[in-house]
Amino acid sequence: MTKNKQIIADRLAALREEMRRENLSAFIFPSSDPHMSEYVPSRWEGRKWISGFDGSAGTAVVTLHSAALWTDSRYFIAAEEQLEGTEFQLMRERVDSTPSIPEWISRELQDGDSTEIGVDGMCMPLAEAEDMKAALRHLGGITMRTNLDILERVWTDRPSVPLNPVEIHSMEFAGESVADKLSRIRHELLRLGAGGMLMTQLDDIAWTLNLRGSDVHCTPVFVAWLIVAEDTVVLFIKDEKLSPEVKDYLHNEGIAIDDYDNIIDALNSYGGYSLLIDPATTNCTLAQLRGNFNAVNAPSPVPAMKAVKNKVECDGYRNAMLRDGVALVKFLKWLDEAVPRGKETELSVSEKLRQLRSEQKLFRDISFDTIAGYEEHGAIVHYEPTPDTDVPLRPEGFLLLDSGAQYSDGTTDITRTIQLGPVSDLHRRVYTLVLKGHLSLQNLCFPRGAAGTQLDAVARTAMWREGMNFMHGTGHGVGSYLSVHEGPHQIRQEYRPAPMLEGMTVTDEPGLYLAGKFGVRIENVLLTVPYMTTEFGSFLRFEPLTLCPIDTQPILVDMLTVEERQCLNAYHEKVYQRLAPLLDSDEREWLAGKTEAI
Amino acid sequence: MTKNKQIIADRLAALREEMRRENLSAFIFPSSDPHMSEYVPSRWEGRKWISGFDGSAGTAVVTLHSAALWTDSRYFIAAEEQLEGTEFQLMRERVDSTPSIPEWISRELQDGDSTEIGVDGMCMPLAEAEDMKAALRHLGGITMRTNLDILERVWTDRPSVPLNPVEIHSMEFAGESVADKLSRIRHELLRLGAGGMLMTQLDDIAWTLNLRGSDVHCTPVFVAWLIVAEDTVVLFIKDEKLSPEVKDYLHNEGIAIDDYDNIIDALNSYGGYSLLIDPATTNCTLAQLRGNFNAVNAPSPVPAMKAVKNKVECDGYRNAMLRDGVALVKFLKWLDEAVPRGKETELSVSEKLRQLRSEQKLFRDISFDTIAGYEEHGAIVHYEPTPDTDVPLRPEGFLLLDSGAQYSDGTTDITRTIQLGPVSDLHRRVYTLVLKGHLSLQNLCFPRGAAGTQLDAVARTAMWREGMNFMHGTGHGVGSYLSVHEGPHQIRQEYRPAPMLEGMTVTDEPGLYLAGKFGVRIENVLLTVPYMTTEFGSFLRFEPLTLCPIDTQPILVDMLTVEERQCLNAYHEKVYQRLAPLLDSDEREWLAGKTEAI
Repeated sequence: MTKNKQIIADRLAALREEMRRENLSAFIFPSSDPHMSEYVPSRWEGRKWISGFDGSAGTAVVTLHSAALWTDSRYFIAAEEQLEGTEFQLMRERVDSTPSIPEWISRELQDGDSTEIGVDGMCMPLAEAEDMKAALRHLGGITMRTNLDILERVWTDRPSVPLNPVEIHSMEFAGESVADKLSRIRHELLRLGAGGMLMTQLDDIAWTLNLRGSDVHCTPVFVAWLIVAEDTVVLFIKDEKLSPEVKDYLHNEGIAIDDYDNIIDALNSYGGYSLLIDPATTNCTLAQLRGNFNAVNAPSPVPAMKAVKNKVECDGYRNAMLRDGVALVKFLKWLDEAVPRGKETELSVSEKLRQLRSEQKLFRDISFDTIAGYEEHGAIVHYEPTPDTDVPLRPEGFLLLDSGAQYSDGTTDITRTIQLGPVSDLHRRVYTLVLKGHLSLQNLCFPRGAAGTQLDAVARTAMWREGMNFMHGTGHGVGSYLSVHEGPHQIRQEYRPAPMLEGMTVTDEPGLYLAGKFGVRIENVLLTVPYMTTEFGSFLRFEPLTLCPIDTQPILVDMLTVEERQCLNAYHEKVYQRLAPLLDSDEREWLAGKTEAI
Repeated sequence: MTKNKQIIADRLAALREEMRRENLSAFIFPSSDPHMSEYVPSRWEGRKWISGFDGSAGTAVVTLHSAALWTDSRYFIAAEEQLEGTEFQLMRERVDSTPSIPEWISRELQDGDSTEIGVDGMCMPLAEAEDMKAALRHLGGITMRTNLDILERVWTDRPSVPLNPVEIHSMEFAGESVADKLSRIRHELLRLGAGGMLMTQLDDIAWTLNLRGSDVHCTPVFVAWLIVAEDTVVLFIKDEKLSPEVKDYLHNEGIAIDDYDNIIDALNSYGGYSLLIDPATTNCTLAQLRGNFNAVNAPSPVPAMKAVKNKVECDGYRNAMLRDGVALVKFLKWLDEAVPRGKETELSVSEKLRQLRSEQKLFRDISFDTIAGYEEHGAIVHYEPTPDTDVPLRPEGFLLLDSGAQYSDGTTDITRTIQLGPVSDLHRRVYTLVLKGHLSLQNLCFPRGAAGTQLDAVARTAMWREGMNFMHGTGHGVGSYLSVHEGPHQIRQEYRPAPMLEGMTVTDEPGLYLAGKFGVRIENVLLTVPYMTTEFGSFLRFEPLTLCPIDTQPILVDMLTVEERQCLNAYHEKVYQRLAPLLDSDEREWLAGKTEAI
């Protein structure tokens, strides 16, 4: 701790020297990279470097005299421990007494301090930077400079832009050629009144070019920019990442290549008529460059296109789910036997699951860090076990296990809550309420084009009646060997205007979390498929893609409606029919028991 | 018809003479009045005067050489008939080939025509006028003048501003003093950064001042403007409307009085610091005046305050519903006997219902024109019988009856679909699907603050499964002896951000409409009341306010869930318990049969 404290103190001293040289009285370190990625390559983990706090969300702010770190309730305990002994004060987000970042900065500035502060504009989206600037201006005329990457001067051993190789995502998995995708994108741009677009989100670029990478944890993307113009497409990327094969491929697709760092020059000299820039996801440095073009500020059309899976991608999903299901059955059968032996922990079973998945064909990686929460840990929504928090699994209570894998033909995301032995009536009741919500959504038929917000309540009505609720979304899109969290559609309480269309993947993951006791979540990935067309319009239904038994032990059967029971039994019948031919006889027998009709 | 044709032709000639004098090549006549009222006083029925079309929604546009009228599918048939033989071409809204108003105008302008067109800005909300201006500019630089009330010059026998007397809505019904309401409004304005506000919606003004009027069909409001400033409140109203008693009342409440027509001068000379103007509901003439004040463009805080009923208003509702229920029972019992006699029609039963309601204490008016749609007429969502369309009721099929009344202590709105004799299986099936939706919503418990869009699907899931749907909202707020349609909360597919809070009235009115066959809608008014508070937050439930049996004859009981059946039986038990003491023995016996448990 003392060593850590000294390291942070030294870094702060170096930073402040640079701040004084630039006449800045504060500097903000967000959690983002220049691409607004969910997982950030180490080069852009500046907030972690300056503060020592390693959670996935948080913002550090350093003034000439003080330092503070904002994070949300998931990380209050971890942040407190990691910041101890440093200058950083913990700011608990969404707690009433916590000041906003602009409020705190305005209070901390002392007489004689400059009224200018700084942030690396490459790491803050335009929309957020504009809000921040307005708030700072309002609080006493503070201005925010966005064109200084101060870490470049003080972080001496800063990692480079990731140089991992790019690989081709073949048509066998992608199902649509780059030329066809570009043609569709250009058609959408025309509709939006734009001649071209700047693409900055890494999964959008990977999808458009049918390429994949390994620059980001758990997500097969690569660091690059893409400009799609009227007649040209230019990929801005580090040359080291491109094999001769990939260069040939790009050449054949008509994609020009330029260096990653040339994006600013390219935008400054862009000569096309108009360029679409998405203010929600484009960093403020790039979004504010104005070449000779008109900027069309509008949501990128690419996420909505990527969200609708083509036939090859849907079939790939179904295949990936077969293999994922086999690994899960092997795992759950093993868990049944291993827990009573008394040597397993949250971390050990996570590793076992990873290992069983890695034996499956086309496995590439896990799709996010496994959430394995035993009993009270299951009530911490984003809990991930670490060596410090890991606990042994006893043959009683619930294990909440949320995990997924990246296969070349599909990305998986599944949560099961597993009864490890005796449980209380409360366990059973809460489990059954979550299951009712899960089945009701899976079983829903709805008009094509409905917004996710309309469907969300279906997963909650049963628990609302008991005065219970969960504060996260009910469902998100899932990429096709891409990001495990995809938009633009979502099923959640907050309104998102993106319509639900056929061919979309979406998770169905209601939960309930009883602080200090246990948590329950049950999650399948669903695919929207046509249901019927009548004089009242077109209707869709859900096909569950995930193939894995849902624990029937904790169910209070009387609490289920006839429809819910039929839905669960039909799902289990399908799980058995699909997986049984791929299992050995012991596993098959185990699965038959686990999928027996209730 | 020929006479009518000549009248319209003469009016068009007079209008065009005036347009030429003002160098305008087209003039737009919206359906609105200066207050954006749902029902419009005759003075502002300019669209009807110039075109002859009398539907509630539509826009007429006249160029120097042509004329057209836009309306929606509810009125296609009526408009076609009413426009026949005139110059007006019918433009069917939301039909693909129909041009927008700006598109049509830009096409109709001929060489030598001015590129300026006109509209009376007092009759178009700011937001709509801005969209219209932008579209016209885009289509060849057409400009729109908004400061000319051309009807004032050509409509020689134009009705005056309504001069009906204003009356005091006593505390016994209002439940909150004007001083308290003003204090709460000023508090909200402060929060929105405004020192004062311009109030233009007639029901907001009536609610704020605890006054009522009779200037608008079915709605007890009076034509006026209100400016709430830091230290003053000024009511702009025609002096003829104010009795000495009301003047005294206003004086005692500290409300100053000015002439209705002085609003423009008052805004031009307004000296307060800032004034809130709601761009969605303020007409563009007033919204664009800029005195010495800063305009704060934001939704008015008043609708959200008015939507939450206080205890006196809630009790008033319950009392009004008792009397409305008695009138409805008398009516339904009479209908049972009258239809087989073969002399009744849609219009005759509407009149009978009005008459029975008018015998109840505190009855003031109906709250909207009764929708009585027999069989195929029931499938026309906004059908209102007229002498031309009226049909006899036969002892078979469905009568859809949507009606309501204004009582001093509450406004009612109820729809029942009544089986008049033998019906088909399709009738029964569709009826039961609508009933399932109605009961599911009435039975819902939900988190305080939920948006109506989240709850909407609950009323639709059963019909979605059968590939059926309805295109109108599921629920709207209802005023307290005020407008039968109130915002800002709504339960509908389109997202409205207004949160559901305790004390709100909202209708529960799913329907299904089979074109050419029949329609079904079942509607109660519900009140949101506290349900429970747990570690997961506060939850609300619905108390049905409407007291009237729901026809059980058409129900396919096997299609109902246990919960739905219990919910219906509990509702009928309550209807009987509350109404029986107020009925004579024959009526009581009839009601006992109609509310028998199923």
